[in-house]
Amino acid sequence: MAFPKKKLRGLVAATITPMTENGEINFPVIGRYVDYLVKEQGVKNIFVNGTTGEGLSLSLSERRRVAEEWVTQGRNKLDQVVIHVGALSLKESQELAQHAAEIGADGIAVIAPFFFKSQNKDALISFLREVAAAAPALPFYYYHIPSLTGVKIRAEELLNGIQDKIPTFQGLKFSDTDLLDFGQCVDQNHHRQFALLFGVDEQLLSALIMGATGAVGSTYNYLGKKTNQMLEAFERKDFTTALNYQFCVQRFINYVIKLGFGVSQTKAIMTLVSGIPMGPPRLPLQKATQEFTANAEAKLKSLDFLSLPG
Amino acid sequence: MAFPKKKLRGLVAATITPMTENGEINFPVIGRYVDYLVKEQGVKNIFVNGTTGEGLSLSLSERRRVAEEWVTQGRNKLDQVVIHVGALSLKESQELAQHAAEIGADGIAVIAPFFFKSQNKDALISFLREVAAAAPALPFYYYHIPSLTGVKIRAEELLNGIQDKIPTFQGLKFSDTDLLDFGQCVDQNHHRQFALLFGVDEQLLSALIMGATGAVGSTYNYLGKKTNQMLEAFERKDFTTALNYQFCVQRFINYVIKLGFGVSQTKAIMTLVSGIPMGPPRLPLQKATQEFTANAEAKLKSLDFLSLPG
Amino acid sequence: MAFPKKKLRGLVAATITPMTENGEINFPVIGRYVDYLVKEQGVKNIFVNGTTGEGLSLSLSERRRVAEEWVTQGRNKLDQVVIHVGALSLKESQELAQHAAEIGADGIAVIAPFFFKSQNKDALISFLREVAAAAPALPFYYYHIPSLTGVKIRAEELLNGIQDKIPTFQGLKFSDTDLLDFGQCVDQNHHRQFALLFGVDEQLLSALIMGATGAVGSTYNYLGKKTNQMLEAFERKDFTTALNYQFCVQRFINYVIKLGFGVSQTKAIMTLVSGIPMGPPRLPLQKATQEFTANAEAKLKSLDFLSLPG
Amino acid sequence: MAFPKKKLRGLVAATITPMTENGEINFPVIGRYVDYLVKEQGVKNIFVNGTTGEGLSLSLSERRRVAEEWVTQGRNKLDQVVIHVGALSLKESQELAQHAAEIGADGIAVIAPFFFKSQNKDALISFLREVAAAAPALPFYYYHIPSLTGVKIRAEELLNGIQDKIPTFQGLKFSDTDLLDFGQCVDQNHHRQFALLFGVDEQLLSALIMGATGAVGSTYNYLGKKTNQMLEAFERKDFTTALNYQFCVQRFINYVIKLGFGVSQTKAIMTLVSGIPMGPPRLPLQKATQEFTANAEAKLKSLDFLSLPG
Repeated sequence: MAFPKKKLRGLVAATITPMTENGEINFPVIGRYVDYLVKEQGVKNIFVNGTTGEGLSLSLSERRRVAEEWVTQGRNKLDQVVIHVGALSLKESQELAQHAAEIGADGIAVIAPFFFKSQNKDALISFLREVAAAAPALPFYYYHIPSLTGVKIRAEELLNGIQDKIPTFQGLKFSDTDLLDFGQCVDQNHHRQFALLFGVDEQLLSALIMGATGAVGSTYNYLGKKTNQMLEAFERKDFTTALNYQFCVQRFINYVIKLGFGVSQTKAIMTLVSGIPMGPPRLPLQKATQEFTANAEAKLKSLDFLSLPG
Repeated sequence: MAFPKKKLRGLVAATITPMTENGEINFPVIGRYVDYLVKEQGVKNIFVNGTTGEGLSLSLSERRRVAEEWVTQGRNKLDQVVIHVGALSLKESQELAQHAAEIGADGIAVIAPFFFKSQNKDALISFLREVAAAAPALPFYYYHIPSLTGVKIRAEELLNGIQDKIPTFQGLKFSDTDLLDFGQCVDQNHHRQFALLFGVDEQLLSALIMGATGAVGSTYNYLGKKTNQMLEAFERKDFTTALNYQFCVQRFINYVIKLGFGVSQTKAIMTLVSGIPMGPPRLPLQKATQEFTANAEAKLKSLDFLSLPG
Repeated sequence: MAFPKKKLRGLVAATITPMTENGEINFPVIGRYVDYLVKEQGVKNIFVNGTTGEGLSLSLSERRRVAEEWVTQGRNKLDQVVIHVGALSLKESQELAQHAAEIGADGIAVIAPFFFKSQNKDALISFLREVAAAAPALPFYYYHIPSLTGVKIRAEELLNGIQDKIPTFQGLKFSDTDLLDFGQCVDQNHHRQFALLFGVDEQLLSALIMGATGAVGSTYNYLGKKTNQMLEAFERKDFTTALNYQFCVQRFINYVIKLGFGVSQTKAIMTLVSGIPMGPPRLPLQKATQEFTANAEAKLKSLDFLSLPG
Repeated sequence: MAFPKKKLRGLVAATITPMTENGEINFPVIGRYVDYLVKEQGVKNIFVNGTTGEGLSLSLSERRRVAEEWVTQGRNKLDQVVIHVGALSLKESQELAQHAAEIGADGIAVIAPFFFKSQNKDALISFLREVAAAAPALPFYYYHIPSLTGVKIRAEELLNGIQDKIPTFQGLKFSDTDLLDFGQCVDQNHHRQFALLFGVDEQLLSALIMGATGAVGSTYNYLGKKTNQMLEAFERKDFTTALNYQFCVQRFINYVIKLGFGVSQTKAIMTLVSGIPMGPPRLPLQKATQEFTANAEAKLKSLDFLSLPG
């Protein structure tokens, strides 16, 4: 068996889906976006069609086309392209999983269904297994984000014995602040080489010390370089520097959270920082206000990320 | 202006989507299901592909085919067939709305998007308006169910001025116990002839006195006849009898809630009562246990609905 | 056994604790307050030291003195004075219960402890029983308000067999919108003569039709007369009139809720309507703003309660 | 200015209030408890009458006597005795604060009032200030535990400018997993020498790297020695060892959480580990089952804490 084929490590950017001003997907800028991530941010892994990518707001055919474009543009440039194929409909999720395999993606990820919520581990595993089975050669990641899904099944419990049910299981995106749960995912799976990727960017350092093997998040689109420097400082046990980086990121996130921070605002910030037009979000999200963008820009400048070493 | 074309009144059954044992949609039994509702339960309006119908667990093409089958089988038998076309993706919701118009449905309904949650009335109205505009000749109903969606925008606030934005707006399914909100929907829209349909079956009587014009729910599939008798008692101001009916329904619901009650269990009960096989639910739901079904059956018998007048 | 001794029926005002501008209890106005309730609002039952009375914000000795003053001033004027003696400390709750008996109160009420939350019925019943036993000659009422306490044990379940554990149990204040739960309290206790008092003023009508035997609430301080007229209309089966009264109350509550409505605002409104100075609340509550008071006054005038019959 | 007088650092045990089998406070064992903490666990700071100490379940006079006993027994043995004086009633909280000063406690702590919940920072600060002012010579700590209080005001926001309002403010017990909030408390208050004590024992390591200056928790009663070893490993940058300690603690907590873990269970575990009888809890808590205790004991043995270095 080929698992684990390639280890997913380090930073993974949760990609934005760029849109034109009239709300259609802006496919032509994706190539430029890839180059930006690799060259400017040092990020070579991506997580496509997740929360940040508005995957669940897109139609099925759009999700397929977006996945294709990232795989195509990422070829020979990116290390790994993981496609989020979660959906409320199992059949559609399976269709997306199969499609991801066909286009040569490096893995698939699935969020817990959140309209009807699984009441126990068995129900959730059954759903995930059916999706995973539709792409039997692809690494499978679980996308754990209880604050959005309302599914409170603890990750460490889910992971207990999961490979018996889902042989392609390779790891998870853990988007929660419960570091007892996360720590136990690490502690109980030492020898399994899972990718245990933390998903709360503004407190990544706290998960690194708990054993996170990497991170998936939206801020790595524009703060990837700085976060990579934090990872390097952590690796060399220079915690003072690592903490300085973390605080710098926190100051920015803490500021924008008070203004109202979500996917719309991430699109505005990424446009600002990268110069690549990310466009407005799809309804039911609404475009970030000009006031937000102006404030975020001023804050970014005032933080003077450049004064940090590196 | 064509609105309101036909008034949606009285009981509306939230239809179950019958499935075969292997989880495919059991189209052939839908005709029999229509006859059962009309003849045995006296229910002539239906709400298709909603929560009870597992609409959001079906693929888009399945949703279309289910809608078609109900419209086809209901012709000349049912008064109104309303199709729930809500989806997380606006484009898919619009596609379903247009399809509902093409097949001759009598109305469409839309749930608030619940992954990204509208932060304010404007955002929600914008989403709903775009869907409604895809079926400009069909009455539009809003499906208000904050406990499932997490969208807390009050219905009375949403209704304030809604026809300026959504000319086809015709009413709502109000699935919540906040009867201040519901009462104000009634009170503030006296002259607008909206269908203000209550969606918490086990306390329908409390909404009737607050001015509900009808009800949409899953229990009307199998308790429609008894509930119609409650409506009649209420109409003739025989509150003692109406309350007896309500309590009888409550005893049953109260009992099954303690066993764990949801769509899976509704499928099991309807199979039991109607004799029409509703089959298992789709994942992430799991089939009701045999123990549940046995207990529910015993309770139904013990309640002796037949001893009530009518 | 003496239970039930006196039936608690009709409207019960949840009394405000009047305070001076410097935050001390304004004992001298309580006599005038009693007269106002009886003569102007037609309310002859009171619930003292509850949520509206800021009972849990007072010191133990203040709670005793407030209870005494209401009992003293109410003598020969009020029908029943029920004292809320709930506290986080069982010992203090028992002390208050015993005190209520000593001063000649007509009953005691207890909220579920809400710092440590009872995990099951047995734990809650054990706590309540210990309090009730400290005043074995006084009717005991349970104050059910899950939205404030976070204790989700259903009332109908609690009532099942409660008199075996708490012989003095006489009824409850049900401050929740779950009318399945409330309906089953009524339905399952037909013959027990419990006082099943509804506590969500703005939807009282919905509970009356479900069998409520009365109501406890803060609005009956200033809307008692109008609500009594609603009760009378309901009694004579004039539902159109009853609903008109209910809607009128709803319009006011719906309006003030949007401005931010709580105990502080109730104090301001009562001062306005009755002319009796209720003063500011205790910290952590803050005084209602002048803007609130001005808006509430304008709304009250515009509603023109006087144009309703009666 | 006298502040900071003594720096509160390292581990702080949230003390249990020992009780006899009939539920009265077991004062005589407190002296032995002090010795156990100092000699067996290496813990020399305590937090009295908090959540673990069932402070809010005790009567006011009991709280006073418990505080006195700890101060008396701790003299010349403990470094700091901080008394939690939070209460729903401001007056009672002030009375306890004054008492703490009189008996020579080293500081006071206050939880946010949680029946009426402060809607904004100003309201909360006003309450805290009034308490602090009753003990103007004592260091004041805020006890931040939003999951229990429901008060969601972020700590970093509360700390912003707090010494202008509360000159005795010295730090906080931060019992939450939001390490953005905690990190910003650290980052924004570098130069103020606040004690920023983390209160989620099972993920303390994640807060240490974020700059925590110490920790307050119930597990330090029986896992103090091991946690002190974790602190030492962290200090000398031996993260592998520190993480091993953290995981060992997590395995235990993770296990007991699944059995149902709270103050009652903490009492049972402490009795087991220390040999000092902690007794049952006060209602509304119920005594831990024998099954729990047996399982917890077996788990403690199996974890073999002794095999860790140190």
